[in-house]
Amino acid sequence: MNYNIITPEVLEAITAIVGADAVVLQHNDLEKYSRDETEDLVYYPEVVAKPRTPEEVAALLKLCNKHLVPVTPRGAGTGLSGGALPVKGGLLIAMERFNKVLEIDEQNLQATVEPGVITEEFMNQVAAKGLLYPVDPASKGSCFIGGNVSHGSGGPRVVKYGTIREYILNLQVVLPSGEIIWTGANTLKYASGYNLTQLMIGSEGTLGIVTKIVVKLIPLPTLDALMLASFATNEEACAAVSAIFRAGIVPSALEFMERRGVEWVKEHDDIAFDLHDGIEAFLLIEVDGTNQDVIFTDCEKINAVLEAYHCKEVLFADSSAQKEELWRLRRTMAVSVKSNSIYKEEDSVVPRAALPQLIKGIKEIGAKYGFESVCYGHAGDGNLHVNIIKGKMSDEDWNNKLKFGIREIFELTVSLGGTLSGEHGIGLVQKDFMPIKYSEVHFALWKGIKKVFDPKGILNPGKIF
Amino acid sequence: MNYNIITPEVLEAITAIVGADAVVLQHNDLEKYSRDETEDLVYYPEVVAKPRTPEEVAALLKLCNKHLVPVTPRGAGTGLSGGALPVKGGLLIAMERFNKVLEIDEQNLQATVEPGVITEEFMNQVAAKGLLYPVDPASKGSCFIGGNVSHGSGGPRVVKYGTIREYILNLQVVLPSGEIIWTGANTLKYASGYNLTQLMIGSEGTLGIVTKIVVKLIPLPTLDALMLASFATNEEACAAVSAIFRAGIVPSALEFMERRGVEWVKEHDDIAFDLHDGIEAFLLIEVDGTNQDVIFTDCEKINAVLEAYHCKEVLFADSSAQKEELWRLRRTMAVSVKSNSIYKEEDSVVPRAALPQLIKGIKEIGAKYGFESVCYGHAGDGNLHVNIIKGKMSDEDWNNKLKFGIREIFELTVSLGGTLSGEHGIGLVQKDFMPIKYSEVHFALWKGIKKVFDPKGILNPGKIF
Repeated sequence: MNYNIITPEVLEAITAIVGADAVVLQHNDLEKYSRDETEDLVYYPEVVAKPRTPEEVAALLKLCNKHLVPVTPRGAGTGLSGGALPVKGGLLIAMERFNKVLEIDEQNLQATVEPGVITEEFMNQVAAKGLLYPVDPASKGSCFIGGNVSHGSGGPRVVKYGTIREYILNLQVVLPSGEIIWTGANTLKYASGYNLTQLMIGSEGTLGIVTKIVVKLIPLPTLDALMLASFATNEEACAAVSAIFRAGIVPSALEFMERRGVEWVKEHDDIAFDLHDGIEAFLLIEVDGTNQDVIFTDCEKINAVLEAYHCKEVLFADSSAQKEELWRLRRTMAVSVKSNSIYKEEDSVVPRAALPQLIKGIKEIGAKYGFESVCYGHAGDGNLHVNIIKGKMSDEDWNNKLKFGIREIFELTVSLGGTLSGEHGIGLVQKDFMPIKYSEVHFALWKGIKKVFDPKGILNPGKIF
Repeated sequence: MNYNIITPEVLEAITAIVGADAVVLQHNDLEKYSRDETEDLVYYPEVVAKPRTPEEVAALLKLCNKHLVPVTPRGAGTGLSGGALPVKGGLLIAMERFNKVLEIDEQNLQATVEPGVITEEFMNQVAAKGLLYPVDPASKGSCFIGGNVSHGSGGPRVVKYGTIREYILNLQVVLPSGEIIWTGANTLKYASGYNLTQLMIGSEGTLGIVTKIVVKLIPLPTLDALMLASFATNEEACAAVSAIFRAGIVPSALEFMERRGVEWVKEHDDIAFDLHDGIEAFLLIEVDGTNQDVIFTDCEKINAVLEAYHCKEVLFADSSAQKEELWRLRRTMAVSVKSNSIYKEEDSVVPRAALPQLIKGIKEIGAKYGFESVCYGHAGDGNLHVNIIKGKMSDEDWNNKLKFGIREIFELTVSLGGTLSGEHGIGLVQKDFMPIKYSEVHFALWKGIKKVFDPKGILNPGKIF
């Protein structure tokens, strides 16, 4: 596709749509829009516009569609697959001014929010009304709910509550043609034509730009318990995971963490917690509910499973401060790894019981290609974040040889019945690996769908396929 | 679209693919394939084929695609929107021989089933292993799980457990080209390209034919309680529904039934239950779990809400036989209505708190157009099955005037934030009403998607749009 650059005439039209104060042009000011949280990748847009209304987004898309200017929508820029990087230059549409919770409907347990609302702020607002929105990625304190929709985001509580797919009822979307539609209805069930809402979720800003989101809420659980279990081997920790579900328990979080990750968090952040010798991995396990006896019984059952899988020690958090601290251990892991080394992150997901084979295989591939890795993530979902550490690897090996190792990780993932990404999306950095799992038939269907929504291919080009 | 009839050459090819014993040709034998459970509609296919393997389905589709022969896939024929009716003649592909549960994977809490498995048989098989597959439409004893996928089915337990969308992990699909693909991966999370699994769910056999289904299972709740609450007015019963959720309870079923429906079930079926004067509506409420105290507390809280909404009487089922009987009251309602009168069924769904306005409006529209209705359904989801009774309406009014009344029902549904179908699909009988809710932009997107999957339009023509 041959795109056009933004001419003075197009820039004038952009400025007329959003106002001069909502246009970013200077190289220095563009810098923060040139990267997201994906490795050290940098791509500058030509211009950034910050619209405030769906109508402004519509006018911008119509303009760019006419002039064949590439458009990259951007949420908070916390993505890990390069989805918000403007790889073809052009216009970047920053959604940061769409930052309002428009309605919390306590009659229907629904809310309508704009895509630029920070996920945790929204969670707190609904929690204040006794309601739960459970989709809380590790970046919940900074990511936007619109970005979560675009990536089909998850987080620790998917294991009990499901991904964002189960909470999005309806979306207002601006298409590249400038048309504004609602994808569905504000209802809990929907069997009225192809489900455009579900199609938009996880489409990574390539089909349309989301401008309003109708969310389902549920009653807030009032109680929880949190435990940290330590294991001598990664495999034993991973094997315990599916055994917990087989015992009839559905925890509200079931996270895996490798020792190295925990060490780095402790260096980076002051967390009071003794790391004993002979421990290779941890499971962080939460159960929630409304009845203390049920939670206690669940914890006892989990404890019995952990013992059967040779758990070394179980630490029960005995205060909300300690719970907070243990969660911080898990939530700051990505940041700690990043501050310790150049790294690449993969988002492998497999059927839950295949986790031991996955982690064993990743370490073997690392040994073969000479890289170390720190693995952690949503073990209850079979979803492992694989942080590949540059460490002592030469630049030559890092830049040219590593990709074959990553390919082997994905080949292993796929051979175990899994796929390339569970919640981070494909974006820019995983797309070359998609043919490992998907055939030409899949690509033809995806590209066909893309063409239906975006015939000229202006929206977030260079992503997914 | 100008389709071709099945020529002797095409028939010979069909027979060569599936074998002579799997081809139905005689008018008498075709009769059962000429109708589903939708009103009294009858459309004969030219030929029925009963393939046994995905490869046979692929060969049939390739053949029909080449010769422009329309193809209608059929599950158990229990649909209520005419989705399985071969309105353009051609080949009907009956999936009844795809009737095997291929695997119940207790390690991963997943199962792989063929689409012709009867939903209840599958539920029973997984329940025997302590697992729950909670998607149980009223027709669970006869419908196929493949048909449930095609319609995005629900049932009473959606209110707690979600629709079939939340339980389908991966689908094997045959495209009209004859290509066989898996739409996704056997994983609990998926962020790897446009979600073809979700797109297939609810597409009513218009995009491809599902030949294998990978299902998520969850631990089976071991306890439940069931209560039947009676109200003097429909509006009070409906108003109590959203109040139950606002009290922090998520029941495992919350069904509404109008008096007339209950009366007809009692005439049709011997159910021991006294129907007192002055009662207009009932709520059937179930809570489930693993702890008797929690269930008891939930029941008490529900009872308090019911009293606040002027409930006349609450009957607690005190044995599994009585639970079975009360459920039979609800599950046989459609059959009882059907045996009492010619009727049409609509599947309105609105935000839960709008139910009182919906039912009030339906009765007003009925008064205006001279029809009576029996309403019942999944009130916890805001989903009401509206059975319009012919009763004393003249044939002239029934055939020519009623459609304007139905249009008003859907206009009301849409004005309340709802949509035309919550779980029955659009199929043949609702499609003329789709423009009430959806614009030309929606139709263009849907038709565009259809063309990507089925460029010649051979699959289930005449449905949805």
